Amino acid sequence: MNGAESLVATLVDQGVDICFANPGTSEMHFLAALGNNPKMRSVLCLFEGVATGAADGWYRMKDKPASTLLHLGPGLANGLANIHNAKRASSGMVNVVGEHSVSHLKYDPPLTSDIEGLSRPLSHWVRRAESSNTIAWDTAQAVAKAGEHPGQIATLILPGDTSWQQVANVPVLPPAVAAGRKVPSTERVEHVARVLRSGEPTLIILANKATRGAALEKAGRVAAATGAQLGSQFFTARIERGAGRVPIARIPYAVAQAAAFLKDFKHIVTFETREPVAFFAYPDKPSLLKAEGTQVHALVEADEDSELAFDMLLQALGTAGTAPLVQQRIETPVPTGALNPTSIAHALAAALPEHCIVVDESLTTGRESMSLTMGALPHDLINNMGGSIGYATPVATGAALACPDRRVFCMVGDGSAMYTIQSLWTQAREGLNVTTIIFANNSYAILKAEYANMGAGTPNERALSMIDIDKPSIDWLAMATSMGVPAVAVETAESFHKALIDSTREPGPCLIEVRL
Amino acid sequence: MNGAESLVATLVDQGVDICFANPGTSEMHFLAALGNNPKMRSVLCLFEGVATGAADGWYRMKDKPASTLLHLGPGLANGLANIHNAKRASSGMVNVVGEHSVSHLKYDPPLTSDIEGLSRPLSHWVRRAESSNTIAWDTAQAVAKAGEHPGQIATLILPGDTSWQQVANVPVLPPAVAAGRKVPSTERVEHVARVLRSGEPTLIILANKATRGAALEKAGRVAAATGAQLGSQFFTARIERGAGRVPIARIPYAVAQAAAFLKDFKHIVTFETREPVAFFAYPDKPSLLKAEGTQVHALVEADEDSELAFDMLLQALGTAGTAPLVQQRIETPVPTGALNPTSIAHALAAALPEHCIVVDESLTTGRESMSLTMGALPHDLINNMGGSIGYATPVATGAALACPDRRVFCMVGDGSAMYTIQSLWTQAREGLNVTTIIFANNSYAILKAEYANMGAGTPNERALSMIDIDKPSIDWLAMATSMGVPAVAVETAESFHKALIDSTREPGPCLIEVRL
Repeated sequence: MNGAESLVATLVDQGVDICFANPGTSEMHFLAALGNNPKMRSVLCLFEGVATGAADGWYRMKDKPASTLLHLGPGLANGLANIHNAKRASSGMVNVVGEHSVSHLKYDPPLTSDIEGLSRPLSHWVRRAESSNTIAWDTAQAVAKAGEHPGQIATLILPGDTSWQQVANVPVLPPAVAAGRKVPSTERVEHVARVLRSGEPTLIILANKATRGAALEKAGRVAAATGAQLGSQFFTARIERGAGRVPIARIPYAVAQAAAFLKDFKHIVTFETREPVAFFAYPDKPSLLKAEGTQVHALVEADEDSELAFDMLLQALGTAGTAPLVQQRIETPVPTGALNPTSIAHALAAALPEHCIVVDESLTTGRESMSLTMGALPHDLINNMGGSIGYATPVATGAALACPDRRVFCMVGDGSAMYTIQSLWTQAREGLNVTTIIFANNSYAILKAEYANMGAGTPNERALSMIDIDKPSIDWLAMATSMGVPAVAVETAESFHKALIDSTREPGPCLIEVRL
Repeated sequence: MNGAESLVATLVDQGVDICFANPGTSEMHFLAALGNNPKMRSVLCLFEGVATGAADGWYRMKDKPASTLLHLGPGLANGLANIHNAKRASSGMVNVVGEHSVSHLKYDPPLTSDIEGLSRPLSHWVRRAESSNTIAWDTAQAVAKAGEHPGQIATLILPGDTSWQQVANVPVLPPAVAAGRKVPSTERVEHVARVLRSGEPTLIILANKATRGAALEKAGRVAAATGAQLGSQFFTARIERGAGRVPIARIPYAVAQAAAFLKDFKHIVTFETREPVAFFAYPDKPSLLKAEGTQVHALVEADEDSELAFDMLLQALGTAGTAPLVQQRIETPVPTGALNPTSIAHALAAALPEHCIVVDESLTTGRESMSLTMGALPHDLINNMGGSIGYATPVATGAALACPDRRVFCMVGDGSAMYTIQSLWTQAREGLNVTTIIFANNSYAILKAEYANMGAGTPNERALSMIDIDKPSIDWLAMATSMGVPAVAVETAESFHKALIDSTREPGPCLIEVRL
């Protein structure tokens, strides 16, 4: 057994059984080890940002880390933007970054760079595997770190010689024990119980693990018992929503609307998140969105257990028996006519099949209208926590691999889709059940609004030409075809609805160009 | 005038008059400033790796820096791989990275990251512009740093408030004075003159500015006078070559061939480079490629002046009047029949028009056969110095903007092309004279050879599936069409030659898929 084989065997033993890979020369032994270990699934990606984004999508659905294989510093660099998004979404992952062998590094060959330096700003844990004999321990620690709550970014640097040298004694390691969720403080619970009993208007903002499963159900009990409003930030890692789920109101994106939403709450209680902050700074607009005088109570910190906190809170309130508020099913008629945010949302509400997964990076098109899908059949909604564009198509790829029996709908603007469009190829290669929905408005439409929001005035023709992406407009049917994904274009709400339904009838990926 | 306008005005005043941009919300004032300054050309890129690679291509042809506009830390991260390649090619550039305003940063909004931390591993100079009043000086220093010899990576971080705040007193700055080329030491010149007079077999390895213009011509005089062999590393930033130019022998890529090439030289003299090193480390293969006992003489360091060194050397040798050796024109007949590295090189040799630019990232297809184009009409050859794949299509984009009257031939493998394929869109948008040649072998062919070279044995089916990219194979005609670039596929040497010729007949980009 060599170092690479020890690494792969340890990943598998510790529960990491998928690797999103973009390999290079220095990773040939790792590739051989992947190929020889039938318990490890290897997924080839044609760009590293697809690999790291897919690992994020995998974690969001599985709550356990995937691994990535990246080729030296520049390969890592190509994956960093989606590592940033994953980090902000509290998704754990184990990045394996190839490196020159120790003896070669001193000659500063062309691909040399400061891999630790590139890793650290966006990793929680970085280690260089110095020896094939100890790489199993390194790997086990990386997995344990990645598997903590909240998920962590672990980056393991793999020099060539560590990879190819033999392991003297193959270690047998116990399963990784990740740090568990911490218990929230009783004092904080009792304090928040008093706040809720006061009857003053209160918003409970849920995030990360609090927006699904038993935690969400218990949140619904608290809301029903106290009249508190449940809310989420505009972006959340994953929300279980739709008919039968506890509904959560979304704080709007734009500063003015968010402030209007928040202005009447006397209290904000946070679960695994902080008080609402504007996504960007604007001249003459506040960064903090709450009203003056609103009190913020951090009940559950990022590393604590929301479900347990709700149990404690229900006990403190003496309302454990209260039934949760749940969302009623809303049968949405199939819309007809022009495509606009409302008709698009109605088409989605009518078409989304039960237990599907929606990955949203639609920005302007889907931003204000997703509330219209609240009464759709139960589904999961995934959003971009880090704000780096190009997260959706890779995350959809990883989510589809994590949940092969659930269709993934990837809603993405045309501008956003172009950052990591190579995802389509991996979706075709793996036959993934992903419906990519391209909202083709031929512009970075969000920037047109932001230009005015920023106080930069009205863009002149030259500035506008840097926001429009219509010269040339992208031919999405050709783009999908180029990577083996069948595609259709729609120009009406009813044809969009039909295309959504059609996409669920056959396994494998497809793309719908929504012409706006 | 606000900070963004001061920045753009200073860039232009200091000679940086093009900006490869992928903007976001925090850069709206910069976009407005770009739009309002008619002396600045703004080029929109749909992915940041295209922007930084295009800046590299611009520098390679112009010997002066371009600027880029990148959106916060993740936008910079997406550009880092091609910044690495540019750094290794000694290409200067000024990166402007948007950032949250100071007052907003403390709330850690989603797009926050350690931009300095991400910048430093691959920048020579990093600064955060703290005030609109001083940003002109910051910008002038960035341009001076980028314009040094060798070119440097300068990264200027632009917080939103610095961008939008007014400048109290608009400064008038003198033109940037970049550090000039240093004078090589007389002692070293005299030492090398003695080596050359000894008559012992000597290889003079040229790099960076030494592979073109007057420096190259003078290198040819030294070679003619002394019998020394002129050589280059396998990869060089830019070589002026072809008929009438001083020919340079290329040290092979593979370790065994490189060692064979070098084994009979008693001396290696280096100009702006170091002794040859293997690109990767392999088990049981050396890192240093020279023969035991070969002496290495570093004559011109990276920051020194090669042309001056040759003047000094010719004077020391007393051979200033010697005519240089030059490459004879070789009329290559149009090849016919099967496509293979030799027939491909022959087609190129027959088709390349005078003063064209060849950007090569063809790896396996072009690697061993480019010597067959030595007698083509004079042209420039650009190669990847940093080894991060995905450099060619962006560099070709920047080179075409730098030299609008010269056609650029971008030779790229199908695997390589997929990293930064968004370049095609910018080529179409700008109507650039780029002929992209995709060598479609449906695999990362280089890795098949490297698998064995690494001693990883023969790949099994699962490992092989991670090297082949044929499921699905990429439809290159559709890919080009999707981004507005006309395309043709060829399956014979004669049709490849014809497609090359045809591509020179119309302005604008086109793509040739070479089916292997």
